[in-house]
Amino acid sequence: MSQTQILASYIVNGRYEDIPAGVRHEAARSLVNFMGVALGGSVDPAVDIAIRAMTPFSGRPTAAILGRVERFDPLHAALMNGISSHVDDFDDTTPQNYIHPTSPVASAMFAYASANRVTGREFVNAFVLGFEAESRIGNAVYPAHYDAGWHITGTAGIFGAAAAIGRLRGLSEQQMIWSLGLAGTQAAGLREMFGSMGKAFHPGRAAQNGYASAILAEAGFTAGERGIEGPRGFAAVQSARYDLSKITADLGVDFNLRRNTYKPYPCGIVNHPTIEACIELHRAHNLRSADIAAVRLRVAPLVLDLCNQQHITKGLQGKFSVYHGAAIGLVRGQAGLDEYTDAAVTDPAITRVRERVTATGDVALTEDQARVEVELTDGRRVTWSIEQSLGNIHRPLSDDQLSEKFRRCAARALPPDAASLVLDRCWRIDELDDVSSLIDATVPAVQRT
Amino acid sequence: MSQTQILASYIVNGRYEDIPAGVRHEAARSLVNFMGVALGGSVDPAVDIAIRAMTPFSGRPTAAILGRVERFDPLHAALMNGISSHVDDFDDTTPQNYIHPTSPVASAMFAYASANRVTGREFVNAFVLGFEAESRIGNAVYPAHYDAGWHITGTAGIFGAAAAIGRLRGLSEQQMIWSLGLAGTQAAGLREMFGSMGKAFHPGRAAQNGYASAILAEAGFTAGERGIEGPRGFAAVQSARYDLSKITADLGVDFNLRRNTYKPYPCGIVNHPTIEACIELHRAHNLRSADIAAVRLRVAPLVLDLCNQQHITKGLQGKFSVYHGAAIGLVRGQAGLDEYTDAAVTDPAITRVRERVTATGDVALTEDQARVEVELTDGRRVTWSIEQSLGNIHRPLSDDQLSEKFRRCAARALPPDAASLVLDRCWRIDELDDVSSLIDATVPAVQRT
Repeated sequence: MSQTQILASYIVNGRYEDIPAGVRHEAARSLVNFMGVALGGSVDPAVDIAIRAMTPFSGRPTAAILGRVERFDPLHAALMNGISSHVDDFDDTTPQNYIHPTSPVASAMFAYASANRVTGREFVNAFVLGFEAESRIGNAVYPAHYDAGWHITGTAGIFGAAAAIGRLRGLSEQQMIWSLGLAGTQAAGLREMFGSMGKAFHPGRAAQNGYASAILAEAGFTAGERGIEGPRGFAAVQSARYDLSKITADLGVDFNLRRNTYKPYPCGIVNHPTIEACIELHRAHNLRSADIAAVRLRVAPLVLDLCNQQHITKGLQGKFSVYHGAAIGLVRGQAGLDEYTDAAVTDPAITRVRERVTATGDVALTEDQARVEVELTDGRRVTWSIEQSLGNIHRPLSDDQLSEKFRRCAARALPPDAASLVLDRCWRIDELDDVSSLIDATVPAVQRT
Repeated sequence: MSQTQILASYIVNGRYEDIPAGVRHEAARSLVNFMGVALGGSVDPAVDIAIRAMTPFSGRPTAAILGRVERFDPLHAALMNGISSHVDDFDDTTPQNYIHPTSPVASAMFAYASANRVTGREFVNAFVLGFEAESRIGNAVYPAHYDAGWHITGTAGIFGAAAAIGRLRGLSEQQMIWSLGLAGTQAAGLREMFGSMGKAFHPGRAAQNGYASAILAEAGFTAGERGIEGPRGFAAVQSARYDLSKITADLGVDFNLRRNTYKPYPCGIVNHPTIEACIELHRAHNLRSADIAAVRLRVAPLVLDLCNQQHITKGLQGKFSVYHGAAIGLVRGQAGLDEYTDAAVTDPAITRVRERVTATGDVALTEDQARVEVELTDGRRVTWSIEQSLGNIHRPLSDDQLSEKFRRCAARALPPDAASLVLDRCWRIDELDDVSSLIDATVPAVQRT
């Protein structure tokens, strides 16, 4: 049997009861994290613009958009959920393939479940199956595919959406093969878009087009039978090197979802150890901007390859500035969405410190490590070292930390009581009779003005 | 200036008055050919299935689908037009890059012009500009991109749709740069889909997603500024070798549209010289199936690489069988859509001859040549040679031949009077005050049953 056949069979037949409890719990953690960042991103201008542009084209508004009062047809709702959940670069990451995995899959699924009755167990099962399809196809083509310039979150993500929606629709194996084929032939997303709204568009389109793949396949729209592994299929065409055995290795036994990670800070992940060290110094010494004379960072060389912007004016630039990361940690003792706005980047107290940071690349340090030395205006020197950055796979955010991240993000879209209700239903998603009760709780009572 | 900038500026500023009369006439020829094959394909099951699947998701039905009574929002109408105009493999080809160029561009434009007032001159101008964008980007990445397995009609086509719709919407240069960037980051379509409905899906999605790119860009949705030529842009990521200078060479002076070609027969283009020779033999000798004892073909070796299927049962297989091409030419003296149905492929009179064909590859022959020898049951031998196949760039279909092709195709969707009205308006498209008068004429008076 081909990889496409084996995967299709797995997706069609996989049952909730076959998923280990630990994996189910990781699904809930992924969905809590996803929902928080989707609510946080739902107020972003990229979402406003996409909604304004697409409103004339929406079908019957049977689906909610997470965190918004506007309603769209489910395909467009999937697009909007995908944009909002990735636009802050705050969603999850599977380090083995650099996919941001939940956004393409869950964005489609919440759109579907808003317009169609889905139980919590059905939802979690289809989510796990879609996640596995996406991540395993990503594993097969990583790193050559990513290194070539593909935004793997878009290209692998569409398979996850096609799988998950196909499972919720109850596709046959033949239909699932077509759904995966139609996904493969729409797999797209260029890293050239990084730094623009186009980046967040990728998981949005992956969610929308993967959803459509399942709908078309269900109706009998045919595709090539070997969309993944065929000689002109996804792997051969979109990756110079690939290992198809990774798609099916330990399928149903090993779950990629176990290796999902969640960011504590909404910025380039290589900045995280520096930020954490600076937050610790802020807490330990009760630092304010005026206390700080100089900041010296030692970081892995890759950090300076990716995040070496110091003289910046935009929130988006701050996400890729280790200097800004150090400054917000030291001055504010936190690095949430509010620290990556244009206002935060131009805040004089933060700018003052950012301008006093120097950074040195040190090949002896890994990307999970950082050394920070701060010289205070009173002449003292204080230091902090990080060996394993918070949020990495060896030091994951706890459930409580995920809940706290959720509350901070969701506060942009919902009052605290409403956010708490959503959070509670996310953690208990397996128990829900109808996932729409969770989705409806994300809709603000009144339109923001 | 970058290629994306130069191209965007050209698309934004190009005027109808700047297009040479010969190019305008070729635009009309391309649109006549497109409209014929779209009407012919509008009855295909792939269109029925796509309509059925997408109906629940359609927005306000402000746009007609060519040849159908159903109406959709313009984005979905663009998808349906793209499927119908490519599903019979009967649309146009630019031999220098193997793009089927009109389908992605015109499918979007007719959907747009159905819902929005567009004059004939505006339409032709935007069509020529979209065609140039698509074909020039295709030239830059051909052949490495195509050889890798990309269906270039989809991947280059989306740029054409984004350009043409962007021009009709009156985008600024900045917006056009984003529109091209959003097109590039959605460019997709795998040759692995050939032989399934997925192939015709490619120009459909290219039309739909290119259209959406323009709408999003107009609303301010940003993209990378160097979507085509950037280090992680379309050319670098999707083609092992490319020549960006081909995008801008003689821009506004040379028009790729001048080199468009139109198929006389709805099948793999390498079969065309064989079919033509067999049609000539049928006419010269008034052949019937029972007259034929043996058929010997000499063809370019590529013909046997691509079209070597002899024992077949499906219409789609017939399109890629030089044996079937020979049989229908000899027995029926024509090779239209009716000769590529399942019924035609299993017709005993045609099957009898198909089984009697032998074919030899001959490196001395080009793909525009064929030698056919028929041994008759009365012992005579008759032969025909083709040196330049009808429809190739050196022996193009005449306007009258294009009209005749249109009538045969359109007969599948419309009665003769209605088809003649559409044909007349296609030829006179430059003079139309509102292109919707042409589009409305394609809608059947009553639903087919």
